[in-house]
Amino acid sequence: MRESSDRRESMGLRIVVVGIAGVGKSTVVSKSVEAIKGSSVAVFGTEMFEAAKKLKWVKHRDEMRKLPVENQKRLQRIAAQKISRSRGGVVFVDTHLFIRTPEGFWPGLPYSVIEALKPTHLVLIEADPEEILSRRKNDTTRYRDILTTEEVQTELTLARTFLSAASLVSGAPISFIHNREGKADEAARVILNMVANAAK
Amino acid sequence: MRESSDRRESMGLRIVVVGIAGVGKSTVVSKSVEAIKGSSVAVFGTEMFEAAKKLKWVKHRDEMRKLPVENQKRLQRIAAQKISRSRGGVVFVDTHLFIRTPEGFWPGLPYSVIEALKPTHLVLIEADPEEILSRRKNDTTRYRDILTTEEVQTELTLARTFLSAASLVSGAPISFIHNREGKADEAARVILNMVANAAK
Amino acid sequence: MRESSDRRESMGLRIVVVGIAGVGKSTVVSKSVEAIKGSSVAVFGTEMFEAAKKLKWVKHRDEMRKLPVENQKRLQRIAAQKISRSRGGVVFVDTHLFIRTPEGFWPGLPYSVIEALKPTHLVLIEADPEEILSRRKNDTTRYRDILTTEEVQTELTLARTFLSAASLVSGAPISFIHNREGKADEAARVILNMVANAAK
Repeated sequence: MRESSDRRESMGLRIVVVGIAGVGKSTVVSKSVEAIKGSSVAVFGTEMFEAAKKLKWVKHRDEMRKLPVENQKRLQRIAAQKISRSRGGVVFVDTHLFIRTPEGFWPGLPYSVIEALKPTHLVLIEADPEEILSRRKNDTTRYRDILTTEEVQTELTLARTFLSAASLVSGAPISFIHNREGKADEAARVILNMVANAAK
Repeated sequence: MRESSDRRESMGLRIVVVGIAGVGKSTVVSKSVEAIKGSSVAVFGTEMFEAAKKLKWVKHRDEMRKLPVENQKRLQRIAAQKISRSRGGVVFVDTHLFIRTPEGFWPGLPYSVIEALKPTHLVLIEADPEEILSRRKNDTTRYRDILTTEEVQTELTLARTFLSAASLVSGAPISFIHNREGKADEAARVILNMVANAAK
Repeated sequence: MRESSDRRESMGLRIVVVGIAGVGKSTVVSKSVEAIKGSSVAVFGTEMFEAAKKLKWVKHRDEMRKLPVENQKRLQRIAAQKISRSRGGVVFVDTHLFIRTPEGFWPGLPYSVIEALKPTHLVLIEADPEEILSRRKNDTTRYRDILTTEEVQTELTLARTFLSAASLVSGAPISFIHNREGKADEAARVILNMVANAAK
C-alpha cells in the first residue's frame, strides 16, 4: 500500500515521532524539519499546556501534572484534535509513548489520543542501550531516571510493542529508525525518504 | 500523568492483576489486600460463574467451559460491568490474560472486556522461568500444563505484549513486577506504593 | 473458553493465517484445506482486486498499489466484509500482517479490517530465521527483499506483536505454529486439531 498525493496535499502528513529518553530524538526531528520545506514540529506536551492555560486550569507548566487525570486526558484529546486539524505540509508530532511513574508506565499515545490525532505515520527512534545510558548520565538535569542496561532494554522493547499496537489500531505504517551516535543525519535521511515516498 | 484523589474517592481504583500460571500471583494479591485498608479482590472467573448461575445457564463451575462462546463472552461483559460499578476503595481484579487451549491462546482481557471493566491500573506479575517451572512441577493438581523453559518464556513475552496492548487501548498505566521466590512482600510493596501515589 | 458448535454451523470459522515471507505459509494452508472437508481459502489481496475491478478503479493488479490510500482502505473493508459474510464451513483467510515499504511497515490487518472481518481464529506461521532466509534466496522472483538474519528476526518479533494486538482487539484466540523444513504436514496437523476442537 502506498501513499497517494491527495493525502499530503489535502490533509497533510502527521508523522508521530517517539523514542525513549536518550535516543537523540530531538536532533533527528530538528534535522528532518530543516530538510523538509513546509514542515513543522508540534510538541504534544506544549499543545496540552496551551490548552490548559486557555481553560484557565494552570498558569505554570509545573501545575500540569497535579491536574486530575480526567482533566489531563481531556487536554490530550484537545491537543490531538488541534494537531489533526493542521492542513497541508508535514507536521512532526513530538510526543512520549509512555511516561515512567510510580503508578507504572502511563501510555502517552492511548487509543483515545490516536483516534483524535489521526497519525499518517508512526516513527520510533531507537539507539544502542549503552549510548542511551551514556547520554542520560551526561545530562542528569534533563534525564532524572538513571537506569540499568536491563531497564533500558525493557523500555526499548516496550516502545516497540506500544507503537506496534498503535499501528494496528490506527492503520498507520510504523518505522523503526536506529540513531547511531553522531549519525543523526542518516536517521533523518530515512524520514526524508519516507516523506518523499508518501508524496508520490 | 499522575492520579488525582477524585478518581480514587468517587469511582475507586480497579487494579487488574495478571500473570501466567506459577508466578505466585495469588500470594502477591493476598499480601496487597491485607496491607491496604478498604481493598478487596474480585476474581473474574468467579464473577462470571455467579452471573451464569443467575441466568440459570449452569449449576456447576465445570459446565462453564461447555457454554457457547457467545454466551461466555456475554458472561465476561456482565462480570466486567459488575466490577466496574463497585464504588470506592481499591478492587484488585484477579484474572487471566490468556488461556492456553487447543484452539490457541484465548484472550481473557479482550477489548470488549477492557471497555466494560474500565481498569485504572494494569499489573503484570512476572518471575524467573525456572522458578515458574519448579512451582508448576510441585503442584500438578493445580497446574496441568507442564511446559519447557522455552514455552514458559513464550508465555512471559506474550503476557507483556498482551498487557501492553491492553494499556494502549484502555489508557491505563502498566507495571511489570518481578516476584522473587520468597519475596512476595517486596512485590506487594510495589503495589502499595502504586496505590499511595494514585491517592495523592 | 471453548468454541461451541453453534459458531461453526451458523456462521462458520474464519481462520486468518499470516506469516512473514518465506515461512512456507502457502504450503501449510494448502495442506489444511486438502484435509478439511468443506473448507476453502480466501486470498485477501485477490478479494481486494476483485472489488477494485467491480468499482472500475483498476484493470490490472499492478495498478492496485497506485490507488490513493483512502481507496485502498475502502477496498480492504469491502474484502473483509465479503469474507465475513461467507456462511458455513471453514474459510482460511490468507493475508499479510504487514507490508514492508519505504514508508514503514504498513499494517495489513488494522483494527478497521479486523472489525469488518470478524476472525474466529488467528494463526501465525513461523520458521527458523535461517530457513526463511534460505527460502528467500532460492526464490528471488517471489521474494524481492533479501534481508539479514537480524532483520528477519525483527519481522518475526513484529509479527507476534501485531497478531497479539489483533487478538486483544478482536477477542479471537491466537496460535503460533512453527513450520519446520519439510514438515508442513505437522504444521497443518495443528490447524486440523484446532478446527476439530472448535467444532466440539
